[in-house]
Amino acid sequence: MQDIIEGRNPVIEALKAEREIDKLIIAKGAREGSINKIVAMAKEQKIIIQYVDRQKLNEISKTNNHQGVIAYVASYTYSTVEDILARPKKNNEDAFILILDEIMDPHNLGSIMRTADAVGVHGIIIPKRRSVGLTATVAKTSAGAIEHVPVARVPNIPQVVEKLKKEGIWIVGADMDGEIEHFNQDLTGNIALVIGNEGKGIGRLVKEKCDFLVQIPMIGKVSSLNASVAAATLMYEVYRQRYSNK
Amino acid sequence: MQDIIEGRNPVIEALKAEREIDKLIIAKGAREGSINKIVAMAKEQKIIIQYVDRQKLNEISKTNNHQGVIAYVASYTYSTVEDILARPKKNNEDAFILILDEIMDPHNLGSIMRTADAVGVHGIIIPKRRSVGLTATVAKTSAGAIEHVPVARVPNIPQVVEKLKKEGIWIVGADMDGEIEHFNQDLTGNIALVIGNEGKGIGRLVKEKCDFLVQIPMIGKVSSLNASVAAATLMYEVYRQRYSNK
Repeated sequence: MQDIIEGRNPVIEALKAEREIDKLIIAKGAREGSINKIVAMAKEQKIIIQYVDRQKLNEISKTNNHQGVIAYVASYTYSTVEDILARPKKNNEDAFILILDEIMDPHNLGSIMRTADAVGVHGIIIPKRRSVGLTATVAKTSAGAIEHVPVARVPNIPQVVEKLKKEGIWIVGADMDGEIEHFNQDLTGNIALVIGNEGKGIGRLVKEKCDFLVQIPMIGKVSSLNASVAAATLMYEVYRQRYSNK
Repeated sequence: MQDIIEGRNPVIEALKAEREIDKLIIAKGAREGSINKIVAMAKEQKIIIQYVDRQKLNEISKTNNHQGVIAYVASYTYSTVEDILARPKKNNEDAFILILDEIMDPHNLGSIMRTADAVGVHGIIIPKRRSVGLTATVAKTSAGAIEHVPVARVPNIPQVVEKLKKEGIWIVGADMDGEIEHFNQDLTGNIALVIGNEGKGIGRLVKEKCDFLVQIPMIGKVSSLNASVAAATLMYEVYRQRYSNK
């Protein structure tokens, strides 16, 4: 899907956030300082720039306030927790939700989305603050999964956890101190997996609200897994418990 | 561990291969064209350069042919298939080996090494050609696992597969066309998992030699997993079948 962003400041913000911009169109003759800044940032990000007549911008503009610049961006719209909860109900399936508590690395989020798509996760919930959002790098790493896996961004993860519990969903946190190995825990039924930050793990408040804490066992010298690998290992264990013929 | 590389061409090769170079020392006054090239490449890779008296280089040199330049490199030495096979025997364990058939992305190799360490893989076998080797990026992504998981580089993977079979090791290939889901396949006993190239999968010759082909099931819209995620999913399934209390 494509969307447009109009005006100098909105376009600068999109460039700063490294949103996936397919093309910039700029009015011929526009040479304000902020336009120069936009051109410099766009060149650095190797974004295509086209100079067109101002009349053309007027035609494309939806706000009539394009200030000489319009960006064509990929539109990754966020979903809502309600929409995510509606998906398993609609298909009469057990809920399978991921809660990512402050994942910061866009490659991790993209890779997690790719695996989430593969195992049939109904949606991903991330916090509004201290989390990577749906950036161009996430989109690229997700290999297209960003178009298929709904992501809800919420102000308060502990509140959402409470809400999910009321819906009859078990909250399973991945934690080094988990009392049971992930494959020895029953992960059938309505499940939300919680994956913590790459360095700190799950936040204390969220951890306390988990129904179970499971640990992915490690018997090597390096005692941590990449976050996207840990998430995939858990997701495929849920999948196995649902679909294995043993 | 640290090692030194001496002489202009060897240092240029190390720079080209992006080996992890801790420091370059160059003789004061050395100004041959190839030295300038080395300096330019080193600066691009943000490697520390120290200019010292030629006498100092003479002292450090092991070959007496340093040509005015020595690089201090992290030494990741390759292991052998024999050494890898000896590890499970020594500990009286079932063999757990990975064969990576033309993995090209250093981030994938590094991530696979990290997971391999976590699940107790005895060693990784890669082909000499058309495969990423033990580069600085691999080392970094492996989060230290490169120091603990032996890697053997072999000229001919199909020959090694034959050798492993004679040792009583089952060869299990991961393939989209696999006839059975990975978690429905018995993966206990002596196992070598084969993971193919990121785009092409396992080569035909190697695939034909596998005892089993398993598929990681995918029910989403994007029909592939990241290679390091696929490898981790299989490795943890082997681990589960070995250690689960169910």
